[in-house]
Amino acid sequence: MSQPPDDPKTRDLPAGLRLVDGGVTAAPGFRAGNTACGIKTEPGAPDMALLLADRECDVAATFTTSQTASHTIAVCRDHLQRSRHRTQAVIINSGNANCSNGARGLDDAIRMTALAAARLGLDPTKVLVSSTGIIGRPLPMDKIERGIAQIEARPDGGHDFARGIMTTDTRPKTVAVEFDVQGKTVRLGGSTKGVGMIYPNMATMLCYLTTDAAVAPDELQAVMKRAVDDSFNMVCVDGDMSTNDSAFLFASGGAGNEPLREGGPGADVFEAALRYVTRTLGREMARDGEGAKKLMTVRVRGGATDADARRAARAITNSDIWKCAVAGGDPNWGRIISTLGASGATLDHDRLEIGIGGVTLVKDGVAADYDQAAAKRAMAGAEVEIDIHLHLGDHEATAWGCDLTYGYIDENATYTR
Amino acid sequence: MSQPPDDPKTRDLPAGLRLVDGGVTAAPGFRAGNTACGIKTEPGAPDMALLLADRECDVAATFTTSQTASHTIAVCRDHLQRSRHRTQAVIINSGNANCSNGARGLDDAIRMTALAAARLGLDPTKVLVSSTGIIGRPLPMDKIERGIAQIEARPDGGHDFARGIMTTDTRPKTVAVEFDVQGKTVRLGGSTKGVGMIYPNMATMLCYLTTDAAVAPDELQAVMKRAVDDSFNMVCVDGDMSTNDSAFLFASGGAGNEPLREGGPGADVFEAALRYVTRTLGREMARDGEGAKKLMTVRVRGGATDADARRAARAITNSDIWKCAVAGGDPNWGRIISTLGASGATLDHDRLEIGIGGVTLVKDGVAADYDQAAAKRAMAGAEVEIDIHLHLGDHEATAWGCDLTYGYIDENATYTR
Repeated sequence: MSQPPDDPKTRDLPAGLRLVDGGVTAAPGFRAGNTACGIKTEPGAPDMALLLADRECDVAATFTTSQTASHTIAVCRDHLQRSRHRTQAVIINSGNANCSNGARGLDDAIRMTALAAARLGLDPTKVLVSSTGIIGRPLPMDKIERGIAQIEARPDGGHDFARGIMTTDTRPKTVAVEFDVQGKTVRLGGSTKGVGMIYPNMATMLCYLTTDAAVAPDELQAVMKRAVDDSFNMVCVDGDMSTNDSAFLFASGGAGNEPLREGGPGADVFEAALRYVTRTLGREMARDGEGAKKLMTVRVRGGATDADARRAARAITNSDIWKCAVAGGDPNWGRIISTLGASGATLDHDRLEIGIGGVTLVKDGVAADYDQAAAKRAMAGAEVEIDIHLHLGDHEATAWGCDLTYGYIDENATYTR
Repeated sequence: MSQPPDDPKTRDLPAGLRLVDGGVTAAPGFRAGNTACGIKTEPGAPDMALLLADRECDVAATFTTSQTASHTIAVCRDHLQRSRHRTQAVIINSGNANCSNGARGLDDAIRMTALAAARLGLDPTKVLVSSTGIIGRPLPMDKIERGIAQIEARPDGGHDFARGIMTTDTRPKTVAVEFDVQGKTVRLGGSTKGVGMIYPNMATMLCYLTTDAAVAPDELQAVMKRAVDDSFNMVCVDGDMSTNDSAFLFASGGAGNEPLREGGPGADVFEAALRYVTRTLGREMARDGEGAKKLMTVRVRGGATDADARRAARAITNSDIWKCAVAGGDPNWGRIISTLGASGATLDHDRLEIGIGGVTLVKDGVAADYDQAAAKRAMAGAEVEIDIHLHLGDHEATAWGCDLTYGYIDENATYTR
């Protein structure tokens, strides 16, 4: 449950960023909380969460590309369009995905926003909605109503919020940073939930990010898309894309800086902060994958194109046969070779270089002269680092995944019971 | 190890075909055998196999599309081109894939064909070669030499052949049929090996088919491609495509019929026989998937295109989260909905219909009124049948897969040890 001794959050912290506490409420002007309304069967388990800004925010959002998306996705898209991406709150339930529920499902998603808007005194189009959990069961609207009536949002509620959105996660996932923009101190923080059915594509699992920086709307959406592409879209737990994946970034402008624009003052540090936060949350989702005992980080260099590097890196994190080798601590690099060959990435077999934990196993496409004991040691810990060089160009990508264990099967053989 | 009580081979046997014994040696004029030369660590385990025809045959072949293919693939392609697809033998080793071994790997694959050709008195280009097993270890050529020197091919050696090509298979896989073509009795039979790293694409795992029918070379390749596309290319054990996948069909012409041509007399029954044999072998590979306890058959109807139907069917067999539900006997159809949504197949969520074992779970994209106990019963047996109707057109596809169990992890966490 606790962070590893050397907190991985501090490891890759870019210069100019300071870690702060609070997740989605780290930035001033945001409140959050959770409540238990009985959607989940465990008594007292938080199953609703609320994020509320003190003022209207500009909002960037990315959603699942699934053709069987949750009814919540349609409502969010509609509200964002009608509000011109100006939003003040999001109401979330866990334990039920509100997906495949037909006309009733759409009505229920709309009703969740209407109930929350009434409670908060907002226009319904200023409220977004997310659901996560079982597919194909109508939302228990009596419980949802009670939850919305009782939920409270507090300035220190970021950690409660993180717990309220969890499903099979073993721990809440939050991170927040502080940095300076145009002489003003601003904050950016957030939370995600995972941790099965994770292989997003142009979208992600549930993710909520908040900042008090002012960001021009076009820049907000552009920088959010870039950050999501290099973080959540590079995370694989099991190769299954969810019907409910959504990521939101709320920018309140409360810090009083001039709205950030591409190339303008402060835009770079803001993007660095957003990339750091999204990559940290993405990596922690992979580490907490269902049943996972090991985090796998795959760095691909030397790709002929960016797409090749991404494809190669994602393929390794998505290979069941390699994920089993990671579980067993077996440096069976033939499975990396095989997966690369089938990945669709352009490659030259005779140039491939593969290392694990700093031990070079493959050079020029054949076995290097390496120490088998050292290779096994590099696979033995809780973090396995795979470095692949395609030697065809200068494009790079990093993907995160986890091992495949009995625990994944246990969680997923019995989920609806 | 034994066939289930109601032999699945007889279930879908088309009219006009009669089951016969013998696998690759069912057809007159083919001999086969195996030997143990010590590549595998288990003492006495067969690890070489030989298929030999009494005369030169026309040969159709399909290979893996992997960019890191085994050196054997390059040699087969070269020999087929130089011999104009006229071949008389194939020599095979299991326990070592001869992949990622650089120039030495290519030399060794060529040498295997040369040694076999010398032993059999054939031109080396008339001999093909396959390897299967661990990637990245040079072939032990001393053992291979001994194996080639001692292996014998016998007219009743089909079952020995099937055992000689096995790796993690729990049982040999053979099938053969007899039928009439232009008043002549002909036979078609074969064997495959699986059973991990199986998600072929325009190719398959190792498969050898023989017939004494005469088939025009163009027709032979065309009918083989169609059969492989609808059989081995619709089998998924774990979504990983191998570096060594190969399928061969030898046609000797010994039966004395006029060479079969598209639309000509006998072409239809030959294609029906080939489709039956390849689908039976493909299905048995899925049933014998690593760790598999259940065979999953996914039939998709109502696709807008053939590609849509195939994509949808394959996606279900490739979903880890659904494969776990199959293992647990959990009729959690939300995972089918989610997988379909992410499959890339064109679909309309509101028209989806899903049934399992004859129980309709989803109608018009929402939960049907079904008996939960009946749904669980439909998931409880050794065969799980999933029927999906997209209601968008009249294209159909069938895919075969298996459940994801502890056994898969056990086999793959420790394979190289």
